[in-house]
Amino acid sequence: MRKPNIRLRRKATPKSRTNVFQPPGTISYVGEDRTGEVSAETILYDETHFSKQNGIFLDQLKENRVNWFNVDGVHDIAILEKIGSKFHLHHLLLEDIANTTQRPKTEFYGNYIYQCIKMISYDAENHELNEEQVSLILTEDAVITFQEKTGDVFENIRDRIENSRGRIRSVKSDYLFYALIDSIIDHYFIAVEQIGEYLDQLEDEIFDNPQKDSLNKAQKNKRMLLQLRRAIFPLRESISRLLKEDSALIESKTHAYFQDAYDHCIQIIETVESYREINAGLRDMYLSSVSHKMNQIMQVLTIMSSIFIPLTFLAGIYGMNLPDMPEMGWENAYSYFWIACGVIFFSLLGFFKWKKWL
Amino acid sequence: MRKPNIRLRRKATPKSRTNVFQPPGTISYVGEDRTGEVSAETILYDETHFSKQNGIFLDQLKENRVNWFNVDGVHDIAILEKIGSKFHLHHLLLEDIANTTQRPKTEFYGNYIYQCIKMISYDAENHELNEEQVSLILTEDAVITFQEKTGDVFENIRDRIENSRGRIRSVKSDYLFYALIDSIIDHYFIAVEQIGEYLDQLEDEIFDNPQKDSLNKAQKNKRMLLQLRRAIFPLRESISRLLKEDSALIESKTHAYFQDAYDHCIQIIETVESYREINAGLRDMYLSSVSHKMNQIMQVLTIMSSIFIPLTFLAGIYGMNLPDMPEMGWENAYSYFWIACGVIFFSLLGFFKWKKWL
Amino acid sequence: MRKPNIRLRRKATPKSRTNVFQPPGTISYVGEDRTGEVSAETILYDETHFSKQNGIFLDQLKENRVNWFNVDGVHDIAILEKIGSKFHLHHLLLEDIANTTQRPKTEFYGNYIYQCIKMISYDAENHELNEEQVSLILTEDAVITFQEKTGDVFENIRDRIENSRGRIRSVKSDYLFYALIDSIIDHYFIAVEQIGEYLDQLEDEIFDNPQKDSLNKAQKNKRMLLQLRRAIFPLRESISRLLKEDSALIESKTHAYFQDAYDHCIQIIETVESYREINAGLRDMYLSSVSHKMNQIMQVLTIMSSIFIPLTFLAGIYGMNLPDMPEMGWENAYSYFWIACGVIFFSLLGFFKWKKWL
Amino acid sequence: MRKPNIRLRRKATPKSRTNVFQPPGTISYVGEDRTGEVSAETILYDETHFSKQNGIFLDQLKENRVNWFNVDGVHDIAILEKIGSKFHLHHLLLEDIANTTQRPKTEFYGNYIYQCIKMISYDAENHELNEEQVSLILTEDAVITFQEKTGDVFENIRDRIENSRGRIRSVKSDYLFYALIDSIIDHYFIAVEQIGEYLDQLEDEIFDNPQKDSLNKAQKNKRMLLQLRRAIFPLRESISRLLKEDSALIESKTHAYFQDAYDHCIQIIETVESYREINAGLRDMYLSSVSHKMNQIMQVLTIMSSIFIPLTFLAGIYGMNLPDMPEMGWENAYSYFWIACGVIFFSLLGFFKWKKWL
Amino acid sequence: MRKPNIRLRRKATPKSRTNVFQPPGTISYVGEDRTGEVSAETILYDETHFSKQNGIFLDQLKENRVNWFNVDGVHDIAILEKIGSKFHLHHLLLEDIANTTQRPKTEFYGNYIYQCIKMISYDAENHELNEEQVSLILTEDAVITFQEKTGDVFENIRDRIENSRGRIRSVKSDYLFYALIDSIIDHYFIAVEQIGEYLDQLEDEIFDNPQKDSLNKAQKNKRMLLQLRRAIFPLRESISRLLKEDSALIESKTHAYFQDAYDHCIQIIETVESYREINAGLRDMYLSSVSHKMNQIMQVLTIMSSIFIPLTFLAGIYGMNLPDMPEMGWENAYSYFWIACGVIFFSLLGFFKWKKWL
Ligand SMILES: [Mg+2]
Ligand SMILES: [Mg+2]
Ligand SMILES: [Mg+2]
Ligand SMILES: [Mg+2]
Ligand SMILES: [Mg+2]
Ligand SMILES: [Mg+2]
Ligand SMILES: [Mg+2]
Ligand SMILES: [Mg+2]
Ligand SMILES: [Mg+2]
Ligand SMILES: [Mg+2]
Ligand SMILES: [Mg+2]
Ligand SMILES: [Mg+2]
Ligand SMILES: [Mg+2]
Ligand SMILES: [Mg+2]
Ligand SMILES: [Mg+2]
Ligand SMILES: [Mg+2]
Ligand SMILES: [Mg+2]
Ligand SMILES: [Mg+2]
Ligand SMILES: [Mg+2]
Ligand SMILES: [Mg+2]
Ligand SMILES: [Mg+2]
Ligand SMILES: [Mg+2]
Ligand SMILES: [Mg+2]
Ligand SMILES: [Mg+2]
Ligand SMILES: [Mg+2]
Ligand SMILES: [Mg+2]
Ligand SMILES: [Mg+2]
Ligand SMILES: [Mg+2]
Ligand SMILES: [Mg+2]
Ligand SMILES: [Mg+2]
Ligand SMILES: [Mg+2]
Repeated sequence: MRKPNIRLRRKATPKSRTNVFQPPGTISYVGEDRTGEVSAETILYDETHFSKQNGIFLDQLKENRVNWFNVDGVHDIAILEKIGSKFHLHHLLLEDIANTTQRPKTEFYGNYIYQCIKMISYDAENHELNEEQVSLILTEDAVITFQEKTGDVFENIRDRIENSRGRIRSVKSDYLFYALIDSIIDHYFIAVEQIGEYLDQLEDEIFDNPQKDSLNKAQKNKRMLLQLRRAIFPLRESISRLLKEDSALIESKTHAYFQDAYDHCIQIIETVESYREINAGLRDMYLSSVSHKMNQIMQVLTIMSSIFIPLTFLAGIYGMNLPDMPEMGWENAYSYFWIACGVIFFSLLGFFKWKKWL
Repeated sequence: MRKPNIRLRRKATPKSRTNVFQPPGTISYVGEDRTGEVSAETILYDETHFSKQNGIFLDQLKENRVNWFNVDGVHDIAILEKIGSKFHLHHLLLEDIANTTQRPKTEFYGNYIYQCIKMISYDAENHELNEEQVSLILTEDAVITFQEKTGDVFENIRDRIENSRGRIRSVKSDYLFYALIDSIIDHYFIAVEQIGEYLDQLEDEIFDNPQKDSLNKAQKNKRMLLQLRRAIFPLRESISRLLKEDSALIESKTHAYFQDAYDHCIQIIETVESYREINAGLRDMYLSSVSHKMNQIMQVLTIMSSIFIPLTFLAGIYGMNLPDMPEMGWENAYSYFWIACGVIFFSLLGFFKWKKWL
Repeated sequence: MRKPNIRLRRKATPKSRTNVFQPPGTISYVGEDRTGEVSAETILYDETHFSKQNGIFLDQLKENRVNWFNVDGVHDIAILEKIGSKFHLHHLLLEDIANTTQRPKTEFYGNYIYQCIKMISYDAENHELNEEQVSLILTEDAVITFQEKTGDVFENIRDRIENSRGRIRSVKSDYLFYALIDSIIDHYFIAVEQIGEYLDQLEDEIFDNPQKDSLNKAQKNKRMLLQLRRAIFPLRESISRLLKEDSALIESKTHAYFQDAYDHCIQIIETVESYREINAGLRDMYLSSVSHKMNQIMQVLTIMSSIFIPLTFLAGIYGMNLPDMPEMGWENAYSYFWIACGVIFFSLLGFFKWKKWL
Repeated sequence: MRKPNIRLRRKATPKSRTNVFQPPGTISYVGEDRTGEVSAETILYDETHFSKQNGIFLDQLKENRVNWFNVDGVHDIAILEKIGSKFHLHHLLLEDIANTTQRPKTEFYGNYIYQCIKMISYDAENHELNEEQVSLILTEDAVITFQEKTGDVFENIRDRIENSRGRIRSVKSDYLFYALIDSIIDHYFIAVEQIGEYLDQLEDEIFDNPQKDSLNKAQKNKRMLLQLRRAIFPLRESISRLLKEDSALIESKTHAYFQDAYDHCIQIIETVESYREINAGLRDMYLSSVSHKMNQIMQVLTIMSSIFIPLTFLAGIYGMNLPDMPEMGWENAYSYFWIACGVIFFSLLGFFKWKKWL
Repeated sequence: MRKPNIRLRRKATPKSRTNVFQPPGTISYVGEDRTGEVSAETILYDETHFSKQNGIFLDQLKENRVNWFNVDGVHDIAILEKIGSKFHLHHLLLEDIANTTQRPKTEFYGNYIYQCIKMISYDAENHELNEEQVSLILTEDAVITFQEKTGDVFENIRDRIENSRGRIRSVKSDYLFYALIDSIIDHYFIAVEQIGEYLDQLEDEIFDNPQKDSLNKAQKNKRMLLQLRRAIFPLRESISRLLKEDSALIESKTHAYFQDAYDHCIQIIETVESYREINAGLRDMYLSSVSHKMNQIMQVLTIMSSIFIPLTFLAGIYGMNLPDMPEMGWENAYSYFWIACGVIFFSLLGFFKWKKWL
């Protein structure tokens, strides 16, 4: 029942890098096999207006408003090219968007910023992390997001925009850009917390009743912590660059928000590093726990064997058919035999007690 | 009896980050469940005056005096907002105060400094560290402290203020700010010392009589040292920044005090790092100690078995009912049998002695 | 069957550094024994022309065209010297080209750039990495490449040049220089991916059925990951220098391409580092898996022995020939014997069940 | 006999930090319990004069001469205060002198330099390091040294001063300051060398005859190396600062001497780090050595058991009283029995030989 | 036979630092005991002249020629002082030359450069590294070299000078200085290669037939790699300083040579680091290999015991003399007995096969 979710996941590994034999800058999808339809959404708003439509309507883009274009699916190259030509995106950037094995990074182009980030959500059923690459592009009036597939962690942001909760409707696209990144980071906290709880349970399991697959679970934890680490370390760097580079696209009052996001990254990193150490310690506890059990079994065997082996030898002697064994003529021979057995038995028992083996 | 305090603590893990789905800057409590009343205290003093009242009396704030407002409990958002608006605190800062899973840090705002710090006290009964997040705000005339709950390590400071011990009454709010941080650091020393003593005991236990849970205790120690490390490393950074940034809020003659606090941080860090190494070494000692015990038991088993197995075989032979066994006709057959047994016994004993297995 | 490819390869270790006793700058081949003929190829192109010939035709070099001279085999010192004198290459550089144990590096000379790089291809049959040192020299109009032997990963580039695929025909020699490096990096991805898959299989093998050579396979993986690491770490540095040094030989529009290559290096480095950690974890899983199996066997032995040893002793007693054993006169003695055996048997079984050893 | 010196020392841990509840800058002794009298010594010299007196005679301080005041014992606060007021020392500095759990450090005050350093001498009898904190204060004309107790490593310096050996009498107080530090560093070399020799012996012991406490000895070594490391790493930093800060108190011609001391620090650090690695390797050797011994014992048990178990069964069969056992009627049954035993015996022996278990 | 060369060498540890109680700058020999005669050699050359004499002839020093003075043996302080006064060498430098436990370093004095370096040659017979400290002093016209004893790796350089091979005769003393360092570095390659081959053999030995001393060999390898590391790391630093400091003593055209030497240092460092990792992995392979062997032995014991223990019990029963055992009256009792034995035997065998223990 518990077994299946212990198999180490492989789905994150793309089957083949089909673009290896392509010229650089060729836009070709690299990632898990996907054939589904690409869906998209256009959300336009300012302090007074709001509209939300399915599909990408690039012609509705208006200045002095926030234009959010969201694409779910980057395996359809045509859409990438359409958006790329509208916003004059570099062809190497489009290649990066289509390659979902990317490392998180920030790139500053004259009039837009490109942010690659890993959206991670915790799958409690399989104790796995679902990872999706999100590419965000910030221009003066628009935010364009590319996801690998439908479903994301941005529902609360859509809700805040629609219902004017918080300050989001009164500020510009850089704040939306921040809010999306912030929401992704917030979900890292949830993933880290879940791994922490699993770690606690595993520690208890190993202490109370070590299982054959306990260390495999620890190995799986290690992989998940590595996965988080590979998502969050470069993100910290990215946000640090967003803070340092003085891009006109990010207003100065948004800086405090990115500083806050930066703090959160460090907090997650420290927790991940702690968990890695605790996880590594499980191995020692496991070996200790298993060897303790082994020792107890060995002790019983030793004691049983050590006590009965000489007794059995004694019984063997008086089962011999040799002639003229004097003990055969003794009157209380049988009683003496039992007395001898008792003496041997209690001497050995005492010896083991004295050695503290019992 | 000893068992309960070996369970690894979990209380520091907040149940859920309820602010995940809130807009950034929303002040919402994140931490252990707390519902109790929030208590507070206002201490006002200068060289000649002193007053101490329960409750927050922001209207009594006077220039050229030190005004210390202390709040025990950050789950009551209303109080945070009241103080925040009086001192014009940034809403992201208030969010940080209410989030007690914060990493220690210093933030410089124009006319105030924010210091987040972990107050740690050692709980001898459960061999645990009680941790409480303290937020300090230093303005020109006031220090505001926010704690998670009632009880702290500041009693000696209150006493020094009330009874004019030391120089505290003659100096400004920056010195109070320092004195509070200093007192927290002093208690780190106590925690480190206690862990060191526990480490000594554990080392002895493992050498003399390794227990099933010895390595679990080491794992618990590791967690405690990690906890201290996560409190003290960022604090060192913070104090370093307090020394480097030339804020007008901190007078130059207070610098020597912060330098002293900085030295203490490094001293604690080095001790913690040493203890981590010593703690890691316990594992090897444990395995060695356990395998030594195991080996001794195995030796006894081996010697008993190896000696009696051939003897028992010999006895078995003369218990056979086969016809015409020549030994059956020998006169001193039984004596010869015992001589043979003796020869086998002492040969094997000699062999083991020679092999140094005995 | 699987065994042979587990032997750790040694062929990468040159037999002897014959140049140790030579004056510095003496060009002498250092590497695997090679005696075969050196082959070469000259490809010349611009937007409108294309020619490809076997052999090196240095006299055909023309300005304002891209001239690619490729040499397969650096053990023929004469060819090195001929090219060296044509392009005025430093004699220490020629020594480096002939020494195939070189570390990847970039060197800037006034009018040419020297890039040493390791070309790696994955050999699936032996689970090995085939490594070949490639030296690239970029001048204003030419790229000269030196390989150790025939065969490379540049076929797709030759194809792109011949068939004008991509932008390669319309740009200068710096782009060809980049394209060759890019193709080598692309093949690192393939190698890393294959090692990742092998790692997954090994993890399964260790969990399900640990083999004698499982850890040897892990050790071999470790060596391969080390090999990749030694190729890719210095390459990252190299590309970083290519980006920073503002050489006139590399046009500014090619910078974006090198930045992309740089990103790929970091991506490979991170994957390699992750795999190294996962690989290291296999050892713990192995020990756990093996000790689990051992424990199960020990338990069976313990239980069999512990149960039958007292029973055998009992049977031994009633095989004795001592006189006046009262049990011999009892009517249902044999039945009582079996009842006693049953009681002992089930008591011990219950004891083991209670101890959770069964 | 060997046992006592293996107990890990605890005396370096102060019983309680009594100054925790004191205001900062309160001078209170922190260290091992000490109640003895404080002794002191005043040595005054220049190229032509020399005087040496017991006790501190601050009034005899003369310019253009070197005045060395040495205090053995810092638990007498009165003396600290007397000297402190004479030389106008900062009260936080006096607090540091009285706190012997200090980390080595250098502090530059306008007209004096404070150097805290650990004086370490090797105690061969207990294989321990005796550590004493020495505080040095360098002023233009004086060097003041504070030790924890009587006895130091400065005898050769006193001798050189008294007998005008070397250049010490012809130079100023900065050279005395250097000479004292140099002598302390020289004794680190002795300690490191002794630990190295102990390491060699331990390596031999573990290989030839691993003991129960062998790994405890390695753990003790680890603690000693950690202790040295905590003394020498900050000292290197200190000397580096002495070289970099261009204090008027240290003449330029003394720089070469401090550079030499700096080199020695690095040399000690490298040796300590090497020894730490070698020490860590002892653990593997120990486990290997112990498991080798265990294996040999197991082999004997296995062979004895495996050979005699079937033989004993055979003997058991012909001890049965079942009717009509055909072998009972055979003429040479007993000879056949021995032949069968021989066949079994030699077959199994051959099997073990073939398996290379014998 | 193999055994002796596994003993860990100790000869590199000097018996006592006799200079500990000397004033700084006192020239006193620190190193292995040496009493032999000090030999020396003077080689003078320029493009047209060459002379070579035994002994040091400082008066023959001529400008515009390269003067190489080589001293074998630094335990004769008189020679050091004679050369020191001729070239005005600092007394701390002379102290360093006489102290052969020095760390490699470069020191720039106004008109000469001091280079300390470890000359290492591989001793194949004992699988040891012979290490000798070489001090080089470069002045405008001369190179002075101090070795610990007779014999070095400079024969090929003497040969090149004598026979005008390479460019050495046409260039100045800085090139000789380089050539000597280069030759020492070249011999590091040989040492590293030999350790690599030993590592391969050891890996095979551990896999095929792990020995008691296999891990000791790995420990010895570790020590040798540490020794190399301590020689090469500071040397890389040194050469880097030679390149950066713009000393007039080193001509600009020699820079390319030092850059080449620097590359070689890095190459050696990387190989050493790889070997350290591979060497560390041997431990896991060893434990795995040994536990595999142990498991196989345990399995045989388990199977033999588990099968024969119940059979022996069965035989014991029918050897009892209890009255009225019904089986005694059965006609084919003996045949039934053998059938029962067969059933037990094959059931257990089947069970073990099913469990995959056989
Ligand atoms: Mg490509
Ligand atoms: Mg890319
Ligand atoms: Mg999605
Ligand atoms: Mg957030
Ligand atoms: Mg937890
Ligand atoms: Mg903030
Ligand atoms: Mg939020
Ligand atoms: Mg925050
Ligand atoms: Mg509190
Ligand atoms: Mg303090
Ligand atoms: Mg302690
Ligand atoms: Mg201080
Ligand atoms: Mg050479
Ligand atoms: Mg080279
Ligand atoms: Mg090739
Ligand atoms: Mg590419
Ligand atoms: Mg994988
Ligand atoms: Mg790019
Ligand atoms: Mg074991
Ligand atoms: Mg205090
Ligand atoms: Mg202090
Ligand atoms: Mg003293
Ligand atoms: Mg010295
Ligand atoms: Mg040694
Ligand atoms: Mg020096
Ligand atoms: Mg000295
Ligand atoms: Mg020196
Ligand atoms: Mg020599
Ligand atoms: Mg060379
Ligand atoms: Mg090799
Ligand atoms: Mg070069």
